[in-house]
Amino acid sequence: MSTPSPRPGLATLTDRLGFLYGGDYNPEQWSPEVWIEDARLMQQAGVNLATVGVFSWASLEPEPGRFTFGWLQQVIELLAEHDVAIDLATPTASPPPWMGHRWPESLPVNRDGIRLGYGARNHYCASSSVYREHSRRIVTELLDRFADHPAVAMWHVGNEYGTPCYCDLCAERFRSWLQDRYGDLDALNAAWGTTFWSQRYSDWAEIIPPRRAPYVINPSQRLDFRRFISDQLLDLYRDQRTMIIERRPDLPVTTNLMRFYPGADYRQWAPELDIIADDNYPDPNDPDSIVEASLSNDLMRTLGGDRGWMYLEQASGAVNWRGHNVAKSVRRTRLESLRAIGRGADGSCYFQWRASTAGTERFHAALVPHAGEDSERWRAVVAHGQELRTLRPVLDQRVHADVAIVFDWSSWWAAEEETVPSDRLQVHAQLKAWYRQLWERGVSADIVGSGDDLSRYRVVLAPSAYLLDDAAQANLRGYVADGGALVLGPFAGVADRNGHVRRGRFPVGLTDLIGASGEQWLPLPDADELRIESDLLGNGPVTIWAEQLRAEGAEVIASFSGGPVDGLPAVLRHRSGSGTAWYVGTVPAPEQLARLLGAVLAERDVRPVLPDLPSGIEAVRRGRLLFVINHASTTTSVPAPGSWRDLLTGRTVTDRLDLDGEDVVILDPRSAAG
Amino acid sequence: MSTPSPRPGLATLTDRLGFLYGGDYNPEQWSPEVWIEDARLMQQAGVNLATVGVFSWASLEPEPGRFTFGWLQQVIELLAEHDVAIDLATPTASPPPWMGHRWPESLPVNRDGIRLGYGARNHYCASSSVYREHSRRIVTELLDRFADHPAVAMWHVGNEYGTPCYCDLCAERFRSWLQDRYGDLDALNAAWGTTFWSQRYSDWAEIIPPRRAPYVINPSQRLDFRRFISDQLLDLYRDQRTMIIERRPDLPVTTNLMRFYPGADYRQWAPELDIIADDNYPDPNDPDSIVEASLSNDLMRTLGGDRGWMYLEQASGAVNWRGHNVAKSVRRTRLESLRAIGRGADGSCYFQWRASTAGTERFHAALVPHAGEDSERWRAVVAHGQELRTLRPVLDQRVHADVAIVFDWSSWWAAEEETVPSDRLQVHAQLKAWYRQLWERGVSADIVGSGDDLSRYRVVLAPSAYLLDDAAQANLRGYVADGGALVLGPFAGVADRNGHVRRGRFPVGLTDLIGASGEQWLPLPDADELRIESDLLGNGPVTIWAEQLRAEGAEVIASFSGGPVDGLPAVLRHRSGSGTAWYVGTVPAPEQLARLLGAVLAERDVRPVLPDLPSGIEAVRRGRLLFVINHASTTTSVPAPGSWRDLLTGRTVTDRLDLDGEDVVILDPRSAAG
Amino acid sequence: MSTPSPRPGLATLTDRLGFLYGGDYNPEQWSPEVWIEDARLMQQAGVNLATVGVFSWASLEPEPGRFTFGWLQQVIELLAEHDVAIDLATPTASPPPWMGHRWPESLPVNRDGIRLGYGARNHYCASSSVYREHSRRIVTELLDRFADHPAVAMWHVGNEYGTPCYCDLCAERFRSWLQDRYGDLDALNAAWGTTFWSQRYSDWAEIIPPRRAPYVINPSQRLDFRRFISDQLLDLYRDQRTMIIERRPDLPVTTNLMRFYPGADYRQWAPELDIIADDNYPDPNDPDSIVEASLSNDLMRTLGGDRGWMYLEQASGAVNWRGHNVAKSVRRTRLESLRAIGRGADGSCYFQWRASTAGTERFHAALVPHAGEDSERWRAVVAHGQELRTLRPVLDQRVHADVAIVFDWSSWWAAEEETVPSDRLQVHAQLKAWYRQLWERGVSADIVGSGDDLSRYRVVLAPSAYLLDDAAQANLRGYVADGGALVLGPFAGVADRNGHVRRGRFPVGLTDLIGASGEQWLPLPDADELRIESDLLGNGPVTIWAEQLRAEGAEVIASFSGGPVDGLPAVLRHRSGSGTAWYVGTVPAPEQLARLLGAVLAERDVRPVLPDLPSGIEAVRRGRLLFVINHASTTTSVPAPGSWRDLLTGRTVTDRLDLDGEDVVILDPRSAAG
Repeated sequence: MSTPSPRPGLATLTDRLGFLYGGDYNPEQWSPEVWIEDARLMQQAGVNLATVGVFSWASLEPEPGRFTFGWLQQVIELLAEHDVAIDLATPTASPPPWMGHRWPESLPVNRDGIRLGYGARNHYCASSSVYREHSRRIVTELLDRFADHPAVAMWHVGNEYGTPCYCDLCAERFRSWLQDRYGDLDALNAAWGTTFWSQRYSDWAEIIPPRRAPYVINPSQRLDFRRFISDQLLDLYRDQRTMIIERRPDLPVTTNLMRFYPGADYRQWAPELDIIADDNYPDPNDPDSIVEASLSNDLMRTLGGDRGWMYLEQASGAVNWRGHNVAKSVRRTRLESLRAIGRGADGSCYFQWRASTAGTERFHAALVPHAGEDSERWRAVVAHGQELRTLRPVLDQRVHADVAIVFDWSSWWAAEEETVPSDRLQVHAQLKAWYRQLWERGVSADIVGSGDDLSRYRVVLAPSAYLLDDAAQANLRGYVADGGALVLGPFAGVADRNGHVRRGRFPVGLTDLIGASGEQWLPLPDADELRIESDLLGNGPVTIWAEQLRAEGAEVIASFSGGPVDGLPAVLRHRSGSGTAWYVGTVPAPEQLARLLGAVLAERDVRPVLPDLPSGIEAVRRGRLLFVINHASTTTSVPAPGSWRDLLTGRTVTDRLDLDGEDVVILDPRSAAG
Repeated sequence: MSTPSPRPGLATLTDRLGFLYGGDYNPEQWSPEVWIEDARLMQQAGVNLATVGVFSWASLEPEPGRFTFGWLQQVIELLAEHDVAIDLATPTASPPPWMGHRWPESLPVNRDGIRLGYGARNHYCASSSVYREHSRRIVTELLDRFADHPAVAMWHVGNEYGTPCYCDLCAERFRSWLQDRYGDLDALNAAWGTTFWSQRYSDWAEIIPPRRAPYVINPSQRLDFRRFISDQLLDLYRDQRTMIIERRPDLPVTTNLMRFYPGADYRQWAPELDIIADDNYPDPNDPDSIVEASLSNDLMRTLGGDRGWMYLEQASGAVNWRGHNVAKSVRRTRLESLRAIGRGADGSCYFQWRASTAGTERFHAALVPHAGEDSERWRAVVAHGQELRTLRPVLDQRVHADVAIVFDWSSWWAAEEETVPSDRLQVHAQLKAWYRQLWERGVSADIVGSGDDLSRYRVVLAPSAYLLDDAAQANLRGYVADGGALVLGPFAGVADRNGHVRRGRFPVGLTDLIGASGEQWLPLPDADELRIESDLLGNGPVTIWAEQLRAEGAEVIASFSGGPVDGLPAVLRHRSGSGTAWYVGTVPAPEQLARLLGAVLAERDVRPVLPDLPSGIEAVRRGRLLFVINHASTTTSVPAPGSWRDLLTGRTVTDRLDLDGEDVVILDPRSAAG
Repeated sequence: MSTPSPRPGLATLTDRLGFLYGGDYNPEQWSPEVWIEDARLMQQAGVNLATVGVFSWASLEPEPGRFTFGWLQQVIELLAEHDVAIDLATPTASPPPWMGHRWPESLPVNRDGIRLGYGARNHYCASSSVYREHSRRIVTELLDRFADHPAVAMWHVGNEYGTPCYCDLCAERFRSWLQDRYGDLDALNAAWGTTFWSQRYSDWAEIIPPRRAPYVINPSQRLDFRRFISDQLLDLYRDQRTMIIERRPDLPVTTNLMRFYPGADYRQWAPELDIIADDNYPDPNDPDSIVEASLSNDLMRTLGGDRGWMYLEQASGAVNWRGHNVAKSVRRTRLESLRAIGRGADGSCYFQWRASTAGTERFHAALVPHAGEDSERWRAVVAHGQELRTLRPVLDQRVHADVAIVFDWSSWWAAEEETVPSDRLQVHAQLKAWYRQLWERGVSADIVGSGDDLSRYRVVLAPSAYLLDDAAQANLRGYVADGGALVLGPFAGVADRNGHVRRGRFPVGLTDLIGASGEQWLPLPDADELRIESDLLGNGPVTIWAEQLRAEGAEVIASFSGGPVDGLPAVLRHRSGSGTAWYVGTVPAPEQLARLLGAVLAERDVRPVLPDLPSGIEAVRRGRLLFVINHASTTTSVPAPGSWRDLLTGRTVTDRLDLDGEDVVILDPRSAAG
């Protein structure tokens, strides 16, 4: 028996092409004259990768079984001649109108039982055999024609998978999925707790998706339905991926993820993607989006592991799907590309190459704007392409993180069900608040699953670990036992894998680990002003949430002051095994959280990449290279002890750096570089 | 001919058991080992009543016609052995999945025509014969097995009736209901005013429920549909009640109400409930909920009349169905139980006995919390059980009220239709604002219908009497003629029984009673600052609403100052017959309202139970016993002239009482007690 | 060949009756005794026009094919005897219940595919042949009976056309409409840009209305659907109009419009209406509604052109369909009537004559209020009737405007699609902001289409000209070339007739006209404080929007200060041909906008009707007569140079006028009048 050879990844492209630069190219929107101009402009901008065909189904198969591949052939040739590699997409994200028209059962049904129409995109039911068979046929045709084309460097299956469907076909598939998961009905009834509200199923056929009902649906059923949808969409993707690999085992196959997307468990998907590819559109109108984008980059980097990751989509300016679409400036556009590279990206691609004049995304920015070449935007696109070519040394470097943050999709779903103690305790907000503390001090973090190997991390943070299955509990216990430092946030360890609340003083199964236990979760009254008092953390207000805790061996780091928990522990630290477990039973103010996480990092000797980072400055180390990014609009002076060379400009930096507003430097230590 | 013997009520239980204490017990969620622990704990806590079987249908009849009653038999025996009486529920609030699966017509349809799914609860159509017949069968089976079981002390039909349905079967029933009400189509057309907008019906078959339409539905049709839904649900309840009474005429039968629930006219329901039983979940995060809960208690007490009332459901901590679920502290939980008892309750039960680990209500508090016995909550549950056993003397006492507040469901529905002058003039808010003035001065009130006998009351308040049918008008006139004091709030006497506006200067038919008449209702512009000026009430702002009034014999108590009604009367008093009628054509500020109602009470010599109540102190007299309740979190000194014994602690109180935060005393006058 | 004789219009009525005064009369709601009272009261109030029959279908045809016209005959006779002319309505806005009951396909379907019910009004599908045939039948019957009745002075078809429908019949009609517009599928695919998102249609049958879909529908499809709905409703109207004209070519036929209603392109409708008739309900609770109502009056006046216009519906007090319905005072009610007359109206009618006691509009004000004759309201109604009789000299006068404001429905629809750069840049708000500047200085404006003849205007403002088709572009260019002054607001000239973005530096095709071009639209970040600096306009803040502009020959009038556009042009002026084009690439503060438009008007010598108008004073000239209106509630002193006679009171005014709060004068210059 032989191990299967590892799948090809990003390196198969970057080894040859360097940093990937380009974007979605939708030539069917344009005339052949424009194609020629496009090819010329791509070359001018240093574009080396174009994703082609994402929305081409109706152009490739205008009627069922009638195929028109000539134009695509022509485009691929043209791009190849201009040194642009092709990321060839299967066009199955948007079936042509003829499919919904002839086979309405191929269209998705919403929670209300309403069958949705075509005229937008994503109008397919993942369980429809009509949709699946037509998808396979168009992929077969694509492979027959282009599998061996030398310009096709990678394959891109579908697009932004995400449409749930509640139709009867999906109900059937849901049942099969549940049968696989639970084996028999008794197990399912137990897993869903169907004795409550008289929901016991006596026949598999009785099970339906969580459709609109007179009141709130069983949360375990909903949790499983979300898992099912993720798996079902993954199955759809895998279907085509398998076909492609059979024909071209040497080419990477992927699809585009969407950062912290709630509709699919990307940790399950990651192994099936040869390249981790993200679509990410931080809102320039939201100051929080700066930290959020870094966090998303780190998620992708972690999912990619050694394989790296890339941006398949970002905006070169404004998007069009928010209410008020503030544009990224050209400086900020460049900054975000370099920030992603600092956080491990090996490619920076955009949606889309040329701005549409029609269709829903006609106001979505593009590398070639409506204004054309005579524009600041285009000049910036060309300059960035040039700049990326100088970054080849970066490709060898990898980000190393000493800190991990636990984040599980199942836990996210379960923790934000409709009937939890508080809809104000949001998983992503908690994650972001804790991550922000690392970001501000220039400490890198991986975003890991609760079941992942944690042994390599000096510190593990779990700001929101509501659902921890038995294996995850064991994993966290083992991590601490072996010397790790674990920080558990509020409402942790509440639920088991089915989303059932574990019985006993919480966190059930982890109380000895944290040396404390709790009786009651206490969403805070609006009128109360609760504080914590602490020698280590200082005194400060807390919001949203408190817990009624009791120390059972742990050291009380902070106590509540005021309200029904006056004098009770709020934050605890417990030496356990060779390690330490912290428990934070509230939502502290940023200042207290900063001191808390600062203390944890200090105890474990986790050091920032640069000391004393000024506000607005992001710093991240990719291997030996240090990316320093100024998010402020004005020049900021940054301490940078030592002697460095800026990879982008070649200039020397010694001990201190004056960084322009929205500028980035990539510092190479003198000793290494010189 | 013999009068039918009166129905058994609360006394059949309390005579034997004392105060009722306990809650919903859902043993199907637990293993037999847990049942044994539950029985032991119930005994420990002094629980004497458990509601069993509310959501047991799927556990009792896992497939149509296959019954599994063994477990229930076992549980009932076990509880009986531990001195816990059974409130046996028919499980028809949540049909098993097999019903909706096999007979989709048993599922309800919403306004949009969408048939709702199962997976939650309440998924039944009240008109479905499938649902009705299966309901009768399971009730027959329950009766066959448990009707004669000595532990079954009362019966509980369904649960929180409330689901409206707009299906074709309901359309048919709606037509029958209308035929009964109106006899012929002409009468219906007149009652609904169908000449407007060309809505005249020429055939009964044309009539449909008020389904989704392109614009606003006929308000009289909507009003009748709400009445129909209430009657239809009542009919559903009555169906089963009749079956039970036939078998056990000696046992009380009831269902659980939901305070001021807009979906059913509880005054119509009350005669059919042997025990008035309420579910009440004041929001600890809403300071207003303190007064609202007392008001709800008074509604239930009034509905119960001599029969008393009880809490069938309240929360022992937090609920789970609000967005942000603040928990009641253990002190507040006890306080709310004793407050209800002060307001006439003879039983204090909870949803639910043991906290679920799965299902939608897994975060709903319970008497046995997730944390189990090792918890402050459990210790408080035990202590409260003990305390309730000392309260037996309270059972003989009844609350007496000198004041009545008029509240009709039909009027509520009609007054808050979509197209009234202002959606800011809310019936319940008006009711609460006026009631608060009584609450703050320790004056008890009954909550009565406009057609009820008012002769026993010294003062009758009608803060929101929009719809008054002819009989109600005569009733109010007679009350004043006979010497009563009536206070009418704004927008009173507008509509007749069909919700039609009476023609003429308003309040049509009552203008001679109030000695004034009005021409126009005037919702206030946001920009206007209107005030009233008055010797009696002082000057102060008014909000939301003014009226263009003219005194016609009445004394002007307050006049408007500013706006289009500058100088016109705002509040009037008219001596009429042997009594007095007041009219308040605006929404005064609390201070003016306080002075106004204070003057009315003083004129009629209605005295508070204690003088000079400090803020946050609630005082209510139940017979000779005085309940004093401190809603504040800190100790408050309360004047209590005289000498008293605290029933709970035995301590003596003379003239003044220092009451701890969230504490309650029950004062027995020395002369009476000693 | 003969030219068709011009259609009869308002003059056919006003020549005989003077100013039209009256309202909707729905006698089917009342008994014959009330009819007699109504006729008497109409005469007392000077009512000379009653719209009868709008909602009478069910009363005229209680069952299919059974007609009952007797009561209507009686009412018409009665009114005729009291000198009230009849505006006879076809009752097709609200089909009787029997239609929806027997032929559900006659009911409309919403975006979700839900068929809406009856019980309100407007429950018809414009494509339903059942509805159309029954409509024709009832109109035929009406004509057979009343076409020759001398009291019938005009015809009123349907009511407030507006219901869209998404059913399969409408899908078919939509396809026919598209076939007419585009001829072949290739043209349609090009017009809708269907290559994007794989939406190419291969068969007409595939095309559907923009129903609910998983994501945002193609904007060109939506734009065409809105055009189709407008045309489809117009076709419905035209159907009946043709029938009426055939029988009585000498009577005017119309329907009632609804100011800036987004559901129909009234500029397409206007030629088919013999009388431009508006329904207008300014919200007295919204201070902005004062200017908005004048703007709406000016729209109607422009649509009417030489034919004039009238109010068919306004409120005499409060409406009932807002949440909080503040009433107009009697003074304000009169003011609004006279304001409309000042802006060209020749009739002032109301919904409705007598206040309903039942139905959805029972709280809608009426000329005869619920309170009846003994009311301030009724006395005011009588007084206003009297006053209107003195205004006969006004009828000969016409408003003349030197300024035009461009407003197109297609552009409005396209500019507010879901995926444009900002939903904060609202077309109507922009229109209102610019119009307000004219209003405040007493300058009249016509509201014209971008393709209309502009040669008569000294100034043309285009505050929101997003979509300009090729002809409109040529029209604007020609206007400037010939000496006009054009002011283009932000986001102008973006889209072509299909809503496609024109490629190039914007405004594509107009850059030489404005002597400038732009690269990027820049919705402003919430955090940014952007300003403009200008010698001419002064410095001030801007909001919502900036543009990245470059002067190419134009003079920079104002520059941005701050943000990404610091120093770039914000407002430009370009002498072009014999004229001037201004471009405003932002949303200036009112003060800067005032200076800007002031400068434009001054350059073109457009003078206010009165100098130095105080705040809250509206002044408009109708021919030689000057209407001066005080919107404030207190007396205001207004400069009125010269000597005048007030037409209403006969008093003389010299140089200055003290105008009471909410009062109006109509000034006739002494020289002319004397």
